[in-house]
Amino acid sequence: MTDDEKAIRHVVEAWMAASRAGDIEAVLALMTDDVVFMVPGQEPFGKEAFAEASKGMRGVQIDGASEILELMVLEDWAFLRSRIEISATPPGGVPMHRSGHTLTLLRKEADGRWRLARDANLLTQK
Amino acid sequence: MTDDEKAIRHVVEAWMAASRAGDIEAVLALMTDDVVFMVPGQEPFGKEAFAEASKGMRGVQIDGASEILELMVLEDWAFLRSRIEISATPPGGVPMHRSGHTLTLLRKEADGRWRLARDANLLTQK
Repeated sequence: MTDDEKAIRHVVEAWMAASRAGDIEAVLALMTDDVVFMVPGQEPFGKEAFAEASKGMRGVQIDGASEILELMVLEDWAFLRSRIEISATPPGGVPMHRSGHTLTLLRKEADGRWRLARDANLLTQK
Repeated sequence: MTDDEKAIRHVVEAWMAASRAGDIEAVLALMTDDVVFMVPGQEPFGKEAFAEASKGMRGVQIDGASEILELMVLEDWAFLRSRIEISATPPGGVPMHRSGHTLTLLRKEADGRWRLARDANLLTQK
């Protein structure tokens, strides 16, 4: 495994860890400023909208696991396919489970760090 | 626009034209043998499953339009984001409309042709 591959896997793990911890700032630091998120039935959205949505999720306990199925580095870009299982439990509420696949592009930025840059999230409710 | 960008735009146009014409073989020729299609709520599938599903669509009139929102070439790979509107009309039936975005990876193969290699399709029914 190359250093780039290791670094990218670390980004994926750090993303899940920060989500679990409810650390929005840490999640935002793992994406590029021009990130584009794509989900079914919605217009693509960026970093600011992600941050807003995350604020609305305060107190919701996120848990989950992700498995990287494919990872390829192409110069300063990389793509990966992953399978994700996630649960979101509102305070005193019932967990909502979602699972499915993602197709994600990451970019190595000027500081040498890989960040999430484009993400197609195909997760559906179980 | 570079020659690669032109060639990739041509693949997107040829795909829609072949779909409209119901020319399954022409569509299959525009994808790599290891293509992976991803749609919400389903396991990823490949070329053979695509061909099988297309056979089940025989007689269905496909029409649509796609707009490329972003296109970037990375060596022998490229990614694009597009917005697609599509209608599928079974013989004597009512058209079903779907619209939404895709995140697609293409690969330039040994014969110099670009083909669709990974596709996350986030279209939903209107």
